[in-house]
Amino acid sequence: MDEQYKKDNSCTNFCDNFHNTIEFIGKRWMGIIIYNLLNGPKRFHELSESIPGISDRLLTERLRDLEKQGIIVKKVSPSSPRKVEYELTSIGKEFENVFRSILNWIQLKEEQQNT
Amino acid sequence: MDEQYKKDNSCTNFCDNFHNTIEFIGKRWMGIIIYNLLNGPKRFHELSESIPGISDRLLTERLRDLEKQGIIVKKVSPSSPRKVEYELTSIGKEFENVFRSILNWIQLKEEQQNT
Repeated sequence: MDEQYKKDNSCTNFCDNFHNTIEFIGKRWMGIIIYNLLNGPKRFHELSESIPGISDRLLTERLRDLEKQGIIVKKVSPSSPRKVEYELTSIGKEFENVFRSILNWIQLKEEQQNT
Repeated sequence: MDEQYKKDNSCTNFCDNFHNTIEFIGKRWMGIIIYNLLNGPKRFHELSESIPGISDRLLTERLRDLEKQGIIVKKVSPSSPRKVEYELTSIGKEFENVFRSILNWIQLKEEQQNT
């Protein structure tokens, strides 16, 4: 690991950031929402249909959290009827690497369990 | 992203695995415990001291979870007094890539916020 976090075993600012981030993405449904948006902008009902089990209230809350963190933006098209879509920001799109590493890890774990 | 998860927008087995994993590592203190163990085996009190704020009860619970998931093993040395250490398994050590990607993402996010 990088020297930055190798040399420091205790919980500093740096660790707090990590802690907050992992807690944020670990919130129920958060990962799946971002995962769905990696395929492109989505409307509320599209997200809701892609994630069986999530309530509209919770989806609204999560989208608000993601917007607040600068991970998604709400795109409103001036059409009639008004079309609202949720889209990942550039930093939101960078999240793909995090997903990829987690998915790789799951695959490794499964492979190991099957041997 | 890999075709495996590009083609499928809905929540399948595959998504469930992701969901479960991210929820698991998102549990309070879980990330920090693994992070500390990436530097080598640790005794209970060493972990406890490296993570200010965690209670012994919760640390015990998390260590048990990690053991159950095959991410750590409990090493008991036949010395006197008996020495118990917690150590990452090979799959536990693979977790470093997940950490690295999350930390990179945090760094990118901070850089973007500072420009």
